[in-house]
Amino acid sequence: MKAHIDLRSRRNFLLKLGYGATLAAVASYAPSIFAETAAKFLIRQSTEMLPLHFNENSLGMSVKAMNAAKQALIQFGNRYAVEHYNGFVSELAAHHKVSEQQLILGNGSTEILSAVVTYAATQNAVVIEPTPTFGALKGYSENHGMKVIGVPVDDEFIIDIAAMKAIALKQNTPVLINLCNPNNPTGNIVKHQALVNWISNAPDNHIFLIDEAYYDYAVGIDDYQSMLSMIQAGNDKVVVSRTFSKIYGMAGMRMGYGLATEKMAALIKPFAAGFNINVAGIAAASASLTDTEYYARSLASNAHSKKILTAALDELSLDYVPSHTNFILHRLGKPLESYTSKMLENNIKVGRKMTESPYWNRISLGTPDQTQQFVETLRAFRERDWV
Amino acid sequence: MKAHIDLRSRRNFLLKLGYGATLAAVASYAPSIFAETAAKFLIRQSTEMLPLHFNENSLGMSVKAMNAAKQALIQFGNRYAVEHYNGFVSELAAHHKVSEQQLILGNGSTEILSAVVTYAATQNAVVIEPTPTFGALKGYSENHGMKVIGVPVDDEFIIDIAAMKAIALKQNTPVLINLCNPNNPTGNIVKHQALVNWISNAPDNHIFLIDEAYYDYAVGIDDYQSMLSMIQAGNDKVVVSRTFSKIYGMAGMRMGYGLATEKMAALIKPFAAGFNINVAGIAAASASLTDTEYYARSLASNAHSKKILTAALDELSLDYVPSHTNFILHRLGKPLESYTSKMLENNIKVGRKMTESPYWNRISLGTPDQTQQFVETLRAFRERDWV
Repeated sequence: MKAHIDLRSRRNFLLKLGYGATLAAVASYAPSIFAETAAKFLIRQSTEMLPLHFNENSLGMSVKAMNAAKQALIQFGNRYAVEHYNGFVSELAAHHKVSEQQLILGNGSTEILSAVVTYAATQNAVVIEPTPTFGALKGYSENHGMKVIGVPVDDEFIIDIAAMKAIALKQNTPVLINLCNPNNPTGNIVKHQALVNWISNAPDNHIFLIDEAYYDYAVGIDDYQSMLSMIQAGNDKVVVSRTFSKIYGMAGMRMGYGLATEKMAALIKPFAAGFNINVAGIAAASASLTDTEYYARSLASNAHSKKILTAALDELSLDYVPSHTNFILHRLGKPLESYTSKMLENNIKVGRKMTESPYWNRISLGTPDQTQQFVETLRAFRERDWV
Repeated sequence: MKAHIDLRSRRNFLLKLGYGATLAAVASYAPSIFAETAAKFLIRQSTEMLPLHFNENSLGMSVKAMNAAKQALIQFGNRYAVEHYNGFVSELAAHHKVSEQQLILGNGSTEILSAVVTYAATQNAVVIEPTPTFGALKGYSENHGMKVIGVPVDDEFIIDIAAMKAIALKQNTPVLINLCNPNNPTGNIVKHQALVNWISNAPDNHIFLIDEAYYDYAVGIDDYQSMLSMIQAGNDKVVVSRTFSKIYGMAGMRMGYGLATEKMAALIKPFAAGFNINVAGIAAASASLTDTEYYARSLASNAHSKKILTAALDELSLDYVPSHTNFILHRLGKPLESYTSKMLENNIKVGRKMTESPYWNRISLGTPDQTQQFVETLRAFRERDWV
């Protein structure tokens, strides 16, 4: 019975009255007293919440990163991180083989997105992005009163580069193109050559924000490459954003950065954090950069979970978009809303509406164990015709 | 000799050669080999750096805050701080007796300044501020291409409210008035009634950003009060910023916030961090709010250090601005530049140029022990006619 505790105050009340031992049996008869209050859809026998809705890395950050963060907050929690900032920028520049002036640090990569938008707002730019994609940039743009043009993905969730390009060329203002690659919430990629062709031939009033939050999960995939190479080749139109939130498991530490040519970085930097980064985050990020064992383990864990999940989706004949990220967008047999609430009753947070159709859900890959628990619940849902 | 190690690579080289024992004696003859390299101005016998240049709280954060931060990064370092954010906003609102909608969280209070500036930029506002004051807001404003009008303080470093008011009324655009109260780098206050009179009678196109980073050090001083009361009374023209960097010793954790009416807060919030706050910082701030023992100790430590420092400045007949902060702006007998470099040779970071005259320095109050070490060095400087 222990696993059921805390799910419903009504249940706790009854347990306190001594009804615990027979509660399950009673509940299965579903008398009117339970109609509204009992956990009608409870299957999973664990009260541990599975947070599979924010594309976090459930593995947790590297032990070395954690120790570095602890040490930093003990020693330097009361100090501005000026020196740590400088040291880290230096390490990161070496890591990416760029100059320090090409780096823009942010409180998470969302701040890089925000800084690029603020700069683009000063240029009266129009924003063009695929629909669906990660929503933060659109939000920032709307805060600045900018026009945001969403270009729908095709039936297979593939980003329509040709349509985006045509719309961009029609604008008589500067254009900020927002491309999350691999894309969120679809998990698929924009082909490298298509992107290179577009950017190479784009007019000078185009800025391309390439959000590579999920870059590490796509490395080695056919047709995928980071846009960093174009920056290294001197293209001023490209800003790449990266984050320590995903592969490095540091979402709560707020560490992200942007890469651009020195010229472009100088234009964006005034609107980003500067030294305004927390010391624990800097220390953790610095330690993460050199922890290649953790990096490999983090990748392997995600790949393992992806196998567990795709096998189950195949088995249940639930379509999904082949993913090169730490999440999968998959089809539901029932509308998202009812599915989400039933999953929540089983202490699994599965997501929110992200596509036009209510029959798709973006599920984050937990650890293999968590993914296994999710998959078992999903199978049980299917047996009950809930998915 | 140990205390001298690491100060000059030349000295280390000689120490390695075995010259250590006689080095001090040799150096005092200053043969040509030492002319450029020896630590000519070394007095303080400690290699521990005293960072008295950034107005940090050298006491360090509360042990409860530190433990909470450690726990948070272990448990939630890999999670976005959405729930922690909501919980903390709730606590902070209760602490200040305002609604949750009146709070704007930021990565340090500088982000609140930045958000207010970004909002003001969308209104094409002109910025008016005293000179000297904390420089971040001016920097943000210039990044947005805004006009910044500096209004000099008087001969006693008192902010010229009448002049600022007159200039503000002359603008035919919206006006953002930046007032750090108590002011940095002067340490003195703007009188409460003068500010209330100004704000109460100001036109609707005025926004007053009252930066109360040093508020806690001034509580109880005659003629000083927070501007929060005007917000609580419903004045839409006022934004108050506060920080956990000073009295709570959390500069490296990046926790600050703004207070305004719900109407005003809603206009500023789109340009601030939102959920983009690190979990360790939130946990530390949350623990700090209830650690009244630490708060009292932090205040007492600062007051003790202030006594030590002002006694020494009196004794050395070095003028200073009476301070209600964790730093003191004081007169030098010699120009700042030579003083700063000599102090650095003694492993004391004392500041940088902040006033028009090169004969003033802003020194942060360290712990009483650190302040004592500084004061002893200052006395020795006087004996050598260096200050």
